[in-house]
Amino acid sequence: MSELLLWIVLYSILSAIYRNFLIEEYQIIFEKLCVFFYTFADYIPLNFMLGFYVTAVYGRWTNYVNDIGWIDTPCLFISTNIHGTNDTARLIRRNLVRYMVLTQAMVYRTVCVSVKRRFPTLEHLVTSGLMTKSELKSFNEINSPNDNKFWVPMEWCFNLLRQARLIKMIDSDIIYTQLIDKIGQYRSTLLNLAVYDWIPIPLVYTQVVTLAVRFYFIFALFGRQYLKHDYNTPYSETIDLYIPILSIFQFIFYVGWMKVAEVMLNPLGDDDEDLELNYIIDRNLQVGLLTVDKCYGLLPDQEKDMFWK
Amino acid sequence: MSELLLWIVLYSILSAIYRNFLIEEYQIIFEKLCVFFYTFADYIPLNFMLGFYVTAVYGRWTNYVNDIGWIDTPCLFISTNIHGTNDTARLIRRNLVRYMVLTQAMVYRTVCVSVKRRFPTLEHLVTSGLMTKSELKSFNEINSPNDNKFWVPMEWCFNLLRQARLIKMIDSDIIYTQLIDKIGQYRSTLLNLAVYDWIPIPLVYTQVVTLAVRFYFIFALFGRQYLKHDYNTPYSETIDLYIPILSIFQFIFYVGWMKVAEVMLNPLGDDDEDLELNYIIDRNLQVGLLTVDKCYGLLPDQEKDMFWK
Amino acid sequence: MSELLLWIVLYSILSAIYRNFLIEEYQIIFEKLCVFFYTFADYIPLNFMLGFYVTAVYGRWTNYVNDIGWIDTPCLFISTNIHGTNDTARLIRRNLVRYMVLTQAMVYRTVCVSVKRRFPTLEHLVTSGLMTKSELKSFNEINSPNDNKFWVPMEWCFNLLRQARLIKMIDSDIIYTQLIDKIGQYRSTLLNLAVYDWIPIPLVYTQVVTLAVRFYFIFALFGRQYLKHDYNTPYSETIDLYIPILSIFQFIFYVGWMKVAEVMLNPLGDDDEDLELNYIIDRNLQVGLLTVDKCYGLLPDQEKDMFWK
Amino acid sequence: MSELLLWIVLYSILSAIYRNFLIEEYQIIFEKLCVFFYTFADYIPLNFMLGFYVTAVYGRWTNYVNDIGWIDTPCLFISTNIHGTNDTARLIRRNLVRYMVLTQAMVYRTVCVSVKRRFPTLEHLVTSGLMTKSELKSFNEINSPNDNKFWVPMEWCFNLLRQARLIKMIDSDIIYTQLIDKIGQYRSTLLNLAVYDWIPIPLVYTQVVTLAVRFYFIFALFGRQYLKHDYNTPYSETIDLYIPILSIFQFIFYVGWMKVAEVMLNPLGDDDEDLELNYIIDRNLQVGLLTVDKCYGLLPDQEKDMFWK
Amino acid sequence: MSELLLWIVLYSILSAIYRNFLIEEYQIIFEKLCVFFYTFADYIPLNFMLGFYVTAVYGRWTNYVNDIGWIDTPCLFISTNIHGTNDTARLIRRNLVRYMVLTQAMVYRTVCVSVKRRFPTLEHLVTSGLMTKSELKSFNEINSPNDNKFWVPMEWCFNLLRQARLIKMIDSDIIYTQLIDKIGQYRSTLLNLAVYDWIPIPLVYTQVVTLAVRFYFIFALFGRQYLKHDYNTPYSETIDLYIPILSIFQFIFYVGWMKVAEVMLNPLGDDDEDLELNYIIDRNLQVGLLTVDKCYGLLPDQEKDMFWK
Repeated sequence: MSELLLWIVLYSILSAIYRNFLIEEYQIIFEKLCVFFYTFADYIPLNFMLGFYVTAVYGRWTNYVNDIGWIDTPCLFISTNIHGTNDTARLIRRNLVRYMVLTQAMVYRTVCVSVKRRFPTLEHLVTSGLMTKSELKSFNEINSPNDNKFWVPMEWCFNLLRQARLIKMIDSDIIYTQLIDKIGQYRSTLLNLAVYDWIPIPLVYTQVVTLAVRFYFIFALFGRQYLKHDYNTPYSETIDLYIPILSIFQFIFYVGWMKVAEVMLNPLGDDDEDLELNYIIDRNLQVGLLTVDKCYGLLPDQEKDMFWK
Repeated sequence: MSELLLWIVLYSILSAIYRNFLIEEYQIIFEKLCVFFYTFADYIPLNFMLGFYVTAVYGRWTNYVNDIGWIDTPCLFISTNIHGTNDTARLIRRNLVRYMVLTQAMVYRTVCVSVKRRFPTLEHLVTSGLMTKSELKSFNEINSPNDNKFWVPMEWCFNLLRQARLIKMIDSDIIYTQLIDKIGQYRSTLLNLAVYDWIPIPLVYTQVVTLAVRFYFIFALFGRQYLKHDYNTPYSETIDLYIPILSIFQFIFYVGWMKVAEVMLNPLGDDDEDLELNYIIDRNLQVGLLTVDKCYGLLPDQEKDMFWK
Repeated sequence: MSELLLWIVLYSILSAIYRNFLIEEYQIIFEKLCVFFYTFADYIPLNFMLGFYVTAVYGRWTNYVNDIGWIDTPCLFISTNIHGTNDTARLIRRNLVRYMVLTQAMVYRTVCVSVKRRFPTLEHLVTSGLMTKSELKSFNEINSPNDNKFWVPMEWCFNLLRQARLIKMIDSDIIYTQLIDKIGQYRSTLLNLAVYDWIPIPLVYTQVVTLAVRFYFIFALFGRQYLKHDYNTPYSETIDLYIPILSIFQFIFYVGWMKVAEVMLNPLGDDDEDLELNYIIDRNLQVGLLTVDKCYGLLPDQEKDMFWK
Repeated sequence: MSELLLWIVLYSILSAIYRNFLIEEYQIIFEKLCVFFYTFADYIPLNFMLGFYVTAVYGRWTNYVNDIGWIDTPCLFISTNIHGTNDTARLIRRNLVRYMVLTQAMVYRTVCVSVKRRFPTLEHLVTSGLMTKSELKSFNEINSPNDNKFWVPMEWCFNLLRQARLIKMIDSDIIYTQLIDKIGQYRSTLLNLAVYDWIPIPLVYTQVVTLAVRFYFIFALFGRQYLKHDYNTPYSETIDLYIPILSIFQFIFYVGWMKVAEVMLNPLGDDDEDLELNYIIDRNLQVGLLTVDKCYGLLPDQEKDMFWK
Repeated sequence: MSELLLWIVLYSILSAIYRNFLIEEYQIIFEKLCVFFYTFADYIPLNFMLGFYVTAVYGRWTNYVNDIGWIDTPCLFISTNIHGTNDTARLIRRNLVRYMVLTQAMVYRTVCVSVKRRFPTLEHLVTSGLMTKSELKSFNEINSPNDNKFWVPMEWCFNLLRQARLIKMIDSDIIYTQLIDKIGQYRSTLLNLAVYDWIPIPLVYTQVVTLAVRFYFIFALFGRQYLKHDYNTPYSETIDLYIPILSIFQFIFYVGWMKVAEVMLNPLGDDDEDLELNYIIDRNLQVGLLTVDKCYGLLPDQEKDMFWK
């Protein structure tokens, strides 16, 4: 971590100045300052703040993970309950899947940097095959100043479902309501991601915790210096190691703990630890189309199993 | 923060009096008092109280956020399942949306200062187009001493839905029950906000924590004074900085931590961090009407996607 | 708080005896005892116990609040889906509401002192109009040794609903099942209150925490005395304030923290902070009857809204 | 608590030996040992372990309480929706209830000692009237090596429900699915108890916490001895009380806190604090039969209420 | 635990070198180093990190336990609602069960070492009777680069269900939708296990905590040495025990606490404490087939119960 390096460099500079360039009078002033910071560093309640804050962030992270949006459930229901092998039926099933993945890609674009980079404009969604040109035109014609129009592909989806019901590809209204419910759940799940993004944990919470960690270690630049004179602090009995090894480890653990919060606060970012949303879009499209089209009606010959009596 | 300034001013006054105006005899009394407050300040369990309290408040805050009330889900169901392009059908769909947003505005008025300021009276709801004059008249004729009549526009909404079913704009009872369920969920969600407002976290919890923080820093006005004589406290080894820098940071972090709780305790307030409920009303009305009216039946031409084989 | 007064009085008596009536030999014994209690007071883990205990109790309190039982949802469904304006229909709708509120009043009577005071016997439910005489007779004829018969008015409710279905006041079985479900949810919610009351947080948890707080401050009666002689405790450097001001504040904060738990442990009690269940009964009856009877079929004339194009 | 007595006895023996039987040389060795245990006792993180562990156990306890299995909900649905007053109808309704309570008794037998004692064998279920002889025979004929066959009475229950539907005692399939759902929920709830029992909190968690408490107080047998010589510990200033009163209270609070966990870890045990499952079986059977049989169709004459206008 | 042994050995080596092989000059350097590590060891916030981390992991563990996937619920619904005693009907019911268990085995293979060892390849699923040869062929023909094709047996399952409905083995669409819902819930539950496995708790959290514990005890190798000279640390008053008994117990409790997290972090592993997933597969298959086939239609003769009047 570059922060650690910076801290060590600053510490070394201070240490070098104190040891080599200060006359004794200033050394003593410096030392008293160090004792001051050493003594009162525990005014900053790092442990409690980090412990509770990381727990709150962890709870939020699990929500993110639960709301990523896997397409399998709605696709299984579509595949089973929208019948027909002609092109109309295939088109309906495939486009339902496509609209669902399109919604996902649109939501992901607003919450995730790497998806935004992949699809900087809506045209890129057309290029990638998630949207047709005429769909994009239809989408752009809708003027809705206050929002991201995530509901548009879902309205297509629902209307298409309704049409499938009208032409009797769906057997009955009860099956139709179940289908619309499953697709609606998939949508709600995805939309939660947008809401998490729009309403983050109050910034002041994050700021207070982050500042506390930062200032704790700024003060530690002084408080952890090895002092030549004896000030009745625990330091006085120990050896001059030059390198403040335990402070370095403390830095690693506290700042590492804070990094845990940062990683979990935005699990849709760019880092290694973050969720690979681009993969999920690709996977959902591929598996979704496979499920509802190529594997439509898939059923092996019914054979007796091994344990049949 | 103005509290911090006040604290610094009071601290400085005390410090100045002690340093300049007290004779030594009184100085020593003052110093002993300071040592007293310094020594026993940790009788006040700030860390534990703040940690657990903020966690409780955070849990409540997430409930608020989840229950804001997005109109998208019921609107998608209305748009898909209430059929017809004539004025009657459009009127039904639009008014369903309007009644839902009206309920939201009514609930928001009681829980949120900035919405109350926008709609100080019910007439302002008429002016803004959320309600017609005759609806307001009908609303006012209902005499219900014990409550806010949030259920009235919902009763309109449900009765309108029932009428749509009677004139066969909704295809079947199963679809009707699903519709009524989705609208009912939207309503329950909103009503939770009113319940949170009516039944806050027990005041005594907030008071105990707030008082603890306040008194901790009142005592610190004395306990953190730099003392001329040596009292065998950690202070005695350190330097006179005049400015109690670590106490100031401690103030920032603890009071900041408490502010986190305050911000989250009432997320519907007026502050920058708070949720913009006026925006949500506007957005819900605009998007809702768009979804059910202009975009009714919206479905792009069904084309084969890129991956069709 | 009267406990605080008691504590101060006891402290003062001990202090007065020690200062005025003990000869030095006994003073020193007393002082050593005080040092003993001062030194080892932190054997009692107040912070941890209170922190985790209050958190557990707070979780339970939120359950109570969620399960109070608002009648609005079932009433909206009743009003919309049980049709007819003749007396039979009105009677059915009104009595459904009345049975629901009656169930609520019966549950509240067993869990809430102030409702029990209002309805000391079931006859008082008749007087208040929640029950008719013949209903009470019917209720009393049922002999069920093992329980409170909260299910009886609900059985009336369900049978009445069934009857409404039989005479076609409810259009179809699917609507009937939705109605019965909503009423059933209202009932389950209420019954939770009775279960919380029957199965409290294990008493030993509350006892351990309460005893810990009590004994901590009993020991503090000694441990916080100002001592004339020097025992190498932090006290020795400080001034004799006569009044143990920080101990008093510590008492306020810890006992206040415990009071938070007490208030939340039984939110259905008699205190100011507690939920006003009598109000909820009245409100539910009044709003419920209004919703299903006077406002039955309520729907303003359908007019075009302001934004109609 | 017998543990406390044991601890006091051991402490007294050690104390007596040290005071009376050791020569000074050995006394000093003993004292140094005591100082050692006194000084480093806080290596054992009792507070944190107990705090978090008790919180985890409390969460589990609330699940147990929620999953006890009250029969009221399914019975109300059975009573309302399975029609007929002839013996066949009564038999169906009564046996549905009986099978549900039978499932409950079977599950309780495996998770609760006192129910197991009441019904040591399945024959005891026959004797008590929960099962008939032929049902037991049918049950025993099913050979299922891997499980407890809790599903058998539920399969009877579901098949009986199906039969009621076939002979039109249940009006329609939608009502039938609702009934089967409610009974299924009751079953799932009960089965959770068996799962909690089969998969306890990982034993290592309980062991680590329990051992930590045990060893803490074993070490305290030494660490809390009053020492004759001065070792610069806080002890040296205090008086010889012979009885280690604060250590005894510490024992009470910590071991009491651990007992809280033990009580909640197995809320189905035999102790006073535990849930009275035998009562619940009796209550469910009695109330269940009453609800579906004697009170079948129960509905008071429909009279106008007091507030009728 | 082998870690404990290693620690004791290293400690002993250091101790032996210090006591026997160092000249006094180096002894003093070594001692000062020890004092250094002793004094600042509490810079590492083990308690807070472990407490909060174990709590987070425990929450995740309970999710695992809830999502193991018991087949009883879907089987009871299948047995009750798919009718017929001919081979076709039996085949359908049995294969539905088999496909569900097959999905489970496939998911378990990717998340659990011991199941993977039992079924190293898909052929082993055929050998064990969970899959037929032609099913494996059909499965392998599906080319889906991005995923594990867990949905394939579920698609078979749903299509088979649909076929049962088409040939009227299922009475109505409402029952069909309920069936498909229950099977879908079973599937979602299982799939959660795969998601937990794919998205673990961010590794950095685990690493920070694990490193903190490790380094704490590495530093303790020095910090807990008994020193010959007096350095004004608490050690100086105590006796030379040679064996650092309290440090050993501290090691046991902290590392044991961390082991709790490790055990719960991956409850599907190979250890004694872990869930026996192979047993669950066998049990689900055996009980499932029994429920839907041999026990199909199982219902004892309807007799009057003991309490019949």
